[in-house]
Amino acid sequence: MTTNDADRISARLLGKQDPPLEELLALDSEDEAGTDGSPPERLFARQATALLNRLGQFGADPEGGTSRLLYSPAWQNAQAALEEWMNGCGLRPYYDDAGNLFGRLEGTDPLDRGVILTGSHIDTVRRGGLYDGAYGVVGALIAVSYLQRKYGPPRRTLEVVSFAEEEGSRFPLTFWGSGNVTGLYDTRKTPDIVDAEGVTLADAMNGAGFGLKRYRPSRRSDVRAFIELHIEQGAVLERERKTIGIVQGIVGQKRFTFHVKGEANHAGTTPMSYRKDALSAACEMALYVREAALQAGDPLVATVGKLEASPGVANVVPGAASFTVDIRHAEAEALMLFCRSMRERFEQIAARYGVTVDGEEWMSAAPVPMSAKLTALLGKLCISRGLPYRSMYSGAGHDAQIVSAICPAAMVFVPSYNGISHSPHEFTSENDLAAGIVVLADLLYMLAYEGEAAI
Amino acid sequence: MTTNDADRISARLLGKQDPPLEELLALDSEDEAGTDGSPPERLFARQATALLNRLGQFGADPEGGTSRLLYSPAWQNAQAALEEWMNGCGLRPYYDDAGNLFGRLEGTDPLDRGVILTGSHIDTVRRGGLYDGAYGVVGALIAVSYLQRKYGPPRRTLEVVSFAEEEGSRFPLTFWGSGNVTGLYDTRKTPDIVDAEGVTLADAMNGAGFGLKRYRPSRRSDVRAFIELHIEQGAVLERERKTIGIVQGIVGQKRFTFHVKGEANHAGTTPMSYRKDALSAACEMALYVREAALQAGDPLVATVGKLEASPGVANVVPGAASFTVDIRHAEAEALMLFCRSMRERFEQIAARYGVTVDGEEWMSAAPVPMSAKLTALLGKLCISRGLPYRSMYSGAGHDAQIVSAICPAAMVFVPSYNGISHSPHEFTSENDLAAGIVVLADLLYMLAYEGEAAI
Repeated sequence: MTTNDADRISARLLGKQDPPLEELLALDSEDEAGTDGSPPERLFARQATALLNRLGQFGADPEGGTSRLLYSPAWQNAQAALEEWMNGCGLRPYYDDAGNLFGRLEGTDPLDRGVILTGSHIDTVRRGGLYDGAYGVVGALIAVSYLQRKYGPPRRTLEVVSFAEEEGSRFPLTFWGSGNVTGLYDTRKTPDIVDAEGVTLADAMNGAGFGLKRYRPSRRSDVRAFIELHIEQGAVLERERKTIGIVQGIVGQKRFTFHVKGEANHAGTTPMSYRKDALSAACEMALYVREAALQAGDPLVATVGKLEASPGVANVVPGAASFTVDIRHAEAEALMLFCRSMRERFEQIAARYGVTVDGEEWMSAAPVPMSAKLTALLGKLCISRGLPYRSMYSGAGHDAQIVSAICPAAMVFVPSYNGISHSPHEFTSENDLAAGIVVLADLLYMLAYEGEAAI
Repeated sequence: MTTNDADRISARLLGKQDPPLEELLALDSEDEAGTDGSPPERLFARQATALLNRLGQFGADPEGGTSRLLYSPAWQNAQAALEEWMNGCGLRPYYDDAGNLFGRLEGTDPLDRGVILTGSHIDTVRRGGLYDGAYGVVGALIAVSYLQRKYGPPRRTLEVVSFAEEEGSRFPLTFWGSGNVTGLYDTRKTPDIVDAEGVTLADAMNGAGFGLKRYRPSRRSDVRAFIELHIEQGAVLERERKTIGIVQGIVGQKRFTFHVKGEANHAGTTPMSYRKDALSAACEMALYVREAALQAGDPLVATVGKLEASPGVANVVPGAASFTVDIRHAEAEALMLFCRSMRERFEQIAARYGVTVDGEEWMSAAPVPMSAKLTALLGKLCISRGLPYRSMYSGAGHDAQIVSAICPAAMVFVPSYNGISHSPHEFTSENDLAAGIVVLADLLYMLAYEGEAAI
């Protein structure tokens, strides 16, 4: 294929005259696949871009970005499109009762009924980007489709999954998709929660046709491994010029809201030495959080994301202030010690300002290590492909941390342009998208075709 | 009068069966006035309490406090009641075209047509207390009424004023009452501003019957001195166990809003060292403001009253933050130098955090000294009455700072319980209310009856 041909095809992929799916997924001519057996990176790049752009149409916001909230029409249409694409790739699509969509490629080994699962989530934040979650679904589809066309049916069954929900952007709960697979949640015991319009989770689910026992139960016990491809959502890979991040584990998190109470006073008539200024105390606490985190060093991060003074007017010394603290670390012990020191220091600061401080911990998630065997395999694969990689922790939550409760799990990161995520400006280059799919395909090949004994 | 009599009368004053005004203002029997010629403090105390409670009924909020906004029905009724009370005290009430209400006690000296003016404002903040402004009006009425009954007509004309507006709580402007008297404002050139309901100042004024040239023009050139009695609105007198504060001047103020811009990032995936955290920078700036103000010492005060992070969610490193700074000092030079240092320091802090900072000054008022001669007289009067007093600056704005543009002005403060103001919990003890009226009456006597040459 000449450069002109490539340009022409790219233009078609991105333009209104998209090629039919069969054509898109059949583009791996011998020339492109390469004669040396190496995966067709350029093909993967174009397929990923085309499929991500197509998927991004479902829920595209007129003001930019994509909003695909759990069980919404946009979400339903996206799942339906994926179902069609799975079919087109020769996978057998099926839903479970939570609305998770799977595409199954049956294994040939009659003695091994386990499943190698790969994918990510289909939902987005409000006005999110094209890549978060979607890349892991599309990448899995491209990788499995490639393996099937190149090598035929696997020994172990391969499944691509598009989890119903991970972001928590419609209802105040996260991991509804993978959580139903692992037994963390259960569609028959739906939490009594509502979205911003007052619609219950149960009504939304039923309205989309799920939670009605029309589909198979979500809970799975046949999954032998889960591999999730995802954008980094941070800038570490980009800054260090690495193409692949191999996730050692997903950090634990704790989130708090602290309330400082002092005394509201007239800003003009209250001498500085009389004040019990809740905001100043809160500011010193916020600065402590940052300083202590800098001193602790990676992988600890701590963030004061919200801070408010009350009454919050220019000419009143604030009588109250509140702020959030979000703390993450790969080790539970280190996380706990940081929080303990922080609370002690807050008390000292409060005493100095003549104010009180109270805090509630409203979120606590333990660190989740990824499978050491799978991450070791990923490292070897990167070396053999000559791909620059690094081991790292994920500071964000992912479906893999949930699924790891029922099987060995691994995650592969690719760089995020400028570290931007949860934004219409999310971007990952075609080359990096392709590299992630190459690594995923390699690992899936080892696990499903070679019957790698590591799991 | 026995203690029982006093209790009975107090109960009637505070209860539903208030005595008629004539009875209330005629209570100064010979016994109470004292035979030594000293002013009847107990009478002043009861009169002040009774009148303040009556006045507080106009605009009483069912949830507590009093809301008497400029030109509102509650405001109109309060002015009408004061008009009636002035009449009852033998003063001749009249309005000017801005709605300021005056009660005139004509002087006997045909060669001196100047006026000694005393009073304060009738409007309140939303859900304010009984004392702010009202005390100065009621105290002036009681003092002038007492002088008249005790000494007959003065040589120089005395006028009690109830200014239409000072607080700026209905429209985004302050000192509409006294400002019209001094020429700062003009009802014929009403600013084009609206209240929270979209009503223009002109419509509100006309609706209350003002600004229609039915009354005399507001601008005055005959005022020879202005004395304003007011609660401190701070806790200095209370802490130092002083009964009277003699105001040397009203501090100058500057108010700013600063905007810090950094980079919003994922709180989990962005290592501490990568961050451009706008909120942390803003917190350090806010702490600098406090530290620098503590170091500068009285009478400088500096306050960060409002501080907000954007996007303001727990798991996002804030990309932007904004905060207000309110700075006050009795000397313009010191105020200016503080602001200059502050801006320089903010730039340094911003540079360290990799963020930018911009600030706009949206309020600037020069310090206003009170009349040195009048404040000296007040000091002598306090000494002769054996009243513990101190000189101080007013950190809050007052009508006296406006009126001082056209004549010597002075202010007398009495203690505020716990320094509380602009709140239903505003409180000043009866004894302190009375002491302030005693000092006011003494000064008015010197100026209007003895023809004190100091002015």
